This record gives sequence, C-alpha cells and structure tokens, in this order.
Amino acid sequence: MKPSSQGFEFHVRAQDGKARRSTLITPHAAVDLPTFMPVGTQGTVKTLTPEEVAATGAQIVLGNTYHLWLRPGPDLLAHFGGLHAFSRWPHAMLTDSGGFQAFSLSANVKLTEEGFTFRSHLDGQKMFLSPEEAVRIQGLIGADIQMQLDVCSPGNSERHVVEEAVARTTRWAKRAIASPRPEGQALFGIVQGACFADLRRDHAKELAELPFDGLALGGFSVGEPIPAMYETLEAIAFEIDPERPRYLMGVGTPQDLLIAVGLGIDMFDCVLPTRNARNGQALTRFGKITIKNARYRDDKLPLDPDCACPTCHGGYARGYLRHLFIAGEILALRLISAHNLHFYGELMRGARLAIEEGNYIDYQRSSLDRMGHGDLL
Amino acid sequence: MKPSSQGFEFHVRAQDGKARRSTLITPHAAVDLPTFMPVGTQGTVKTLTPEEVAATGAQIVLGNTYHLWLRPGPDLLAHFGGLHAFSRWPHAMLTDSGGFQAFSLSANVKLTEEGFTFRSHLDGQKMFLSPEEAVRIQGLIGADIQMQLDVCSPGNSERHVVEEAVARTTRWAKRAIASPRPEGQALFGIVQGACFADLRRDHAKELAELPFDGLALGGFSVGEPIPAMYETLEAIAFEIDPERPRYLMGVGTPQDLLIAVGLGIDMFDCVLPTRNARNGQALTRFGKITIKNARYRDDKLPLDPDCACPTCHGGYARGYLRHLFIAGEILALRLISAHNLHFYGELMRGARLAIEEGNYIDYQRSSLDRMGHGDLL
Repeated sequence: MKPSSQGFEFHVRAQDGKARRSTLITPHAAVDLPTFMPVGTQGTVKTLTPEEVAATGAQIVLGNTYHLWLRPGPDLLAHFGGLHAFSRWPHAMLTDSGGFQAFSLSANVKLTEEGFTFRSHLDGQKMFLSPEEAVRIQGLIGADIQMQLDVCSPGNSERHVVEEAVARTTRWAKRAIASPRPEGQALFGIVQGACFADLRRDHAKELAELPFDGLALGGFSVGEPIPAMYETLEAIAFEIDPERPRYLMGVGTPQDLLIAVGLGIDMFDCVLPTRNARNGQALTRFGKITIKNARYRDDKLPLDPDCACPTCHGGYARGYLRHLFIAGEILALRLISAHNLHFYGELMRGARLAIEEGNYIDYQRSSLDRMGHGDLL
Repeated sequence: MKPSSQGFEFHVRAQDGKARRSTLITPHAAVDLPTFMPVGTQGTVKTLTPEEVAATGAQIVLGNTYHLWLRPGPDLLAHFGGLHAFSRWPHAMLTDSGGFQAFSLSANVKLTEEGFTFRSHLDGQKMFLSPEEAVRIQGLIGADIQMQLDVCSPGNSERHVVEEAVARTTRWAKRAIASPRPEGQALFGIVQGACFADLRRDHAKELAELPFDGLALGGFSVGEPIPAMYETLEAIAFEIDPERPRYLMGVGTPQDLLIAVGLGIDMFDCVLPTRNARNGQALTRFGKITIKNARYRDDKLPLDPDCACPTCHGGYARGYLRHLFIAGEILALRLISAHNLHFYGELMRGARLAIEEGNYIDYQRSSLDRMGHGDLL
C-alpha cells in the first residue's frame, strides 16, 4: 500500500547492484540516501552544536523518544514548538518509538498486548507506553519521521519467541497506523524476525501492506553475531519494498555501513561515532586511533592528514588531542566527535557518489581494505 | 627603567579620569587595553575552540604554567613549537609563573630563599620552582608575556609577613630579570603588599626601577574583603608607572572590572566567567542567571535578548539551556561559557569606547546600575 503522508516523497535516482542512491523529501528538508543519522539522545548530538552536526554532512538526526519523554517531556517540547525549534535543528529529524530504551534502560518492565509499563530510570516514576501513546508522544516532539512501537526479541531468542514478537509488532503496526498523528509527520514500520530470514521476509511483506512511509529493520545489533546479521541482510534487505526507504536501526560500524549499503539499505543510525569519540577513539579511513595511547604523545599529525573536518583541517595534532583527553578537557570530546561524524558523513557521501558512478563495489572494497576489514568481502 | 623586550610596545591612546585606553603590541598580536584575558589552564579555554574564544572579543589568553609544567610538560610543548602552535591560538598569550597554583594546589610546599619545593597534585612527584626555573619553563611554553615568580602572602596576613613577602618578591624579581629568556617574550613584575597601601606603593616604585615590560598587582582576590581591595586599588593603582601596562591578577567579577578600569587598571584575568558557566551560571548585563532554576523551564528567551553572542544570537532558549544543563549535556557548558566570555569581551569593548569618548564614568555607573551593583559607586 503506497504511503501518503503529506510533504513526503521518495525517489530512487540510481541503482548499482543492490546498492541504491535515492532521495527522501521531508517537510523540513530533502535527505540524500544512503545516509547516516547522528543520534541526539537528549535533544543534542552530544558535545556539538546543530551547525557543527550539519557541517559533518549529516542531513537528518535521530532523537530518542524515551529520553525526551522523561525529560524535558513532550508537553514542554510542544510549548517550544517541537524538538526542531527547541534544539535549533532546522533540517530533517526522525524519532524512535521509545520502546527499545524503555526495555533496556528502565526497571520493572511489564509487557502485555496493550503495551508496556516500566519505571523511569531517572526518578522511578511509573510510565506506560503503547503503540498509540508512542505516536502521540512523537507527535508532540514533532520530528519529520516517527517510528512505530515494536517488540524486539533478544538476539539469542528461540524461534517461537521471535515469531510472537513479529506477530505482536504487526498488530502494533496497525494500531500505530490507525492513531491520529500531525500532518507533516511520516511513519515507518519496523520489521522484526531476528536472524530468521524467512520470518524477516514474511514480516517485511506484511508491513508493506500498510501505508508506512518507510520500512525499518529492527532487532539487529542486539547481541547476535555480526556475520549472522550480514547473512540475514543479504537474504532479505533487497526484497523489502523498493518503493520505500529501508532503514537499518542502531547500526553501526563503518564496515557495517559499507556492507549494508551494498545490500540495499538506505538509512542508518548509531551512537558509535559520538560515544567512541567521548571514550577517546577516533575513526579514520585507516582504522581506529585510541588517542590516549603513548605513541601519539609527540605526534604532530592530525587524526587523518587528508581529512577536511574542522579538527583535522584546523591542525589539531594527535599529541594535542591526547593531552586534552588525558587532562579531561571537554574540547577533546568535541574535536573527536566532530571528526568521527565527519568521517561517517564522508563515508556516506562517497557511497552515494560511487553508486551514481556505478562503481560501488570498488568503493566498498577499497574502503574496507584501507580500514583493515577487507576480509569482510 | 624603560623596558626593552623585542617586539613589544605600549601606547596610551586616551585617558578619561584615571581610566585609560591603550595598546599593547606583542610579537603575536596587538592587544587593545583595557582587556580581559580568558584563562586556558591546561592548554585550552575550557569547552571552547580558539576560534570561539577569539570571537568573544578576547585578544589575549592566559596559560597556567603550573598545570602545563606538570602536564604535558614544557619539553613536549617546545617539541610542538610552544603553546601557541600546540593549542592553535595565534593571538597574544601570557603565562603566569606557576607559583600561585603550586602554593594552592600542591602538597608539602617548602619555601626558601632559593625557591620552593612541592609535590605534584597529579602524581606526587617532587618539583622545584625558583625565579630562574619559572623563566626557563615559561620560555619553553613560549607565551608572549611571562610573569616573574612572586611570593603571595595570604589575604589575612600580618604586616610583617607581608613585608617579608614583598622583600623576597623584589629579590626574586631581580633574579627573574637576570635569567636568560627567549627573544620575543616580555616579562612582567608583580607588586605585592596585600591591602597595605604604603607597602604596595613602595613596592611598585621598586619594581618600576627594573626593566619589566609591565607591572602586575598580585595577591588580590585571595580572601581579603572586596571593599579593602577597591580601597587599596584606589590608593595606589594610578600611581603605578604610567608608561607600562597595569595588570590586576586573578580578578574578577564584572563589577570588579568596571571599578578597577576606573582606577587605572589595563589587564585582567579570571576563571570566573568560564567556571561559573560550567556551574550553570550565566552572567548578563542584567545580572546573573542560574540556569537550573525552575523559573526558566518554559522560558523562550535567550540569556540576554540583546546579546550578539552565538548562544543568544543563535536563538538558544533559556528553557533549552536549562534542559541541557540538568541532563548533564556538555553543549550547555559550551553555550554558557561562550556567552559569559562574550559578555566580558563586550564589557571591555564598551569600556574602551567610553574612555575614548570621555564618558567612562557614565558607562561605569549605568553598567553597574543595570547589574544591580549601583551601590559600589
């Protein structure tokens, strides 16, 4: 069933093998796909201003509904005109449903057909989340794209547990679709099924019957072996309705992105580049740099001498970044975060260009080789 | 004795009462005085990039020799071409002597005529600082302006203790002057004497006999009552050799700056605007804003609607800053730090303009009134 949310369009511009170059038009901005969405958990991509995030090449960011619901709360966000205005991000924005964090961060989670109750990790307050409530809260937050509430089974679940999660996710998908949401907000469905390719395939078909504006793959990167994720993606990603954007949730490493784009995925989000930055890990075209390592003590080079990010282009030496990081200076976290997101932005820009030029396989192979992950192909 | 350091000039452009508008030319840049120097304790003005610091109107920053000596160490700084190159600050820079922090932060301080030993607050290592060693270390750090090692008596010291500190500071001043230092580095002497105006006056005359490029007032803001500081400044500041810049060390609040400029002071440094920012306190033309206060929860105004800093002009609402601060987000600390330093920069810019136009007293009075400190005049 063709989606129909006002202000949204999806166009595939080029295809190269299974990889595709497309455009997602949202009310706030057009987004070039494939794309990586930096995560702004609490209304900010940690350590950075919106201008700095946009300068990394990011065209869309993700907000975490669970965190924003608890603090500052959807009503306050609505008072400020929504998260776009509150956080000064004028471009495209997506919110998750809050379900994943409610499961993983809160206490006393009780799941029923109606929804689930849990206690806030901040103050112990009892909260209730349902498919309808997730749409209502995301409506107040006001992102361009909402995600349905889904049921994510643990990475090592047995088949019958996964089957139940899939079936309930479908029922919740229908309830989410039936819930009133503001004009100018799209809604994506979430395909579950763990690493059972047949369950994933059937679920994707089921959800494609509903008027979702995009289809996401949830329940990856939740503890399953990485090769199993690649294998499942290889089996099913390209079969997901080609008329809608395909979004691989919570993934991943630079190599994950390179592999998954090659299998037909269009959108990604992950805390990895920003979280690792705050732990002193820079990601570069040549692999990782653990900045506190003594080998960088007197190193005058930037993280990547050929990188155009403000950190590398600004001439900050590895030795200086190491000093700042060891001294506990916030500037280190900023500079490495900006670099890492810029690296992700460039990785996706390069992927889009390669697809347009019909040489994605070359791009993928040379990028993985340079990072030391050539074995993945 | 006229100073003679290469690359330095000091010119008084205008005088208005005791307040003066001057220019200090250093090898890296000319500095418009009166000026406020943001403090970059560990090779960075906390949370901000050099570009952001410069955008607040700051033309010179202060580095803390004690911290930089312990970490990353003067030899490593020299390897990188000095603190200017290491920290990417291309403008003027001043370092303190390290003495004040060695006294206040370290353990087992033992003071003799030769210098003093102490144990590093980082790793307990035994360190030795003398007037000659302070010049040597600052030489490696490479700032435009060095400060002599001085002896600062506690704020409540008896007269004979202060007299001894003054006498030793003079002997150390001569040793500092006699120490070899790199070309292109100026050296300032430090006047002590606590709140004994006659001791301060005599000491300033004594130090003015030496070829220092500037004269500082140390030992204020160390526990004495604020009115006593103002009273002492009123008695002695304007008598300090008018041919050299006068620098009031470690001071202070916006009202301190307004008062002291009116008494003939040209330079200031203080951690207050950045430290208070990290504690959630914004300083504005209308007084302080404690951002976590519940009254700002739904406040859509910027910190100061007429402020041109990136935080206020960027449209960040008080309610958003409050959310970020309460959520522990680094962005809050950045945005308030930038605002506070911009406020200090504007306060000094306004002072310079008012002196040029001959209406500093009006500027001082209206600024203090607006901040709720009209009682200080």
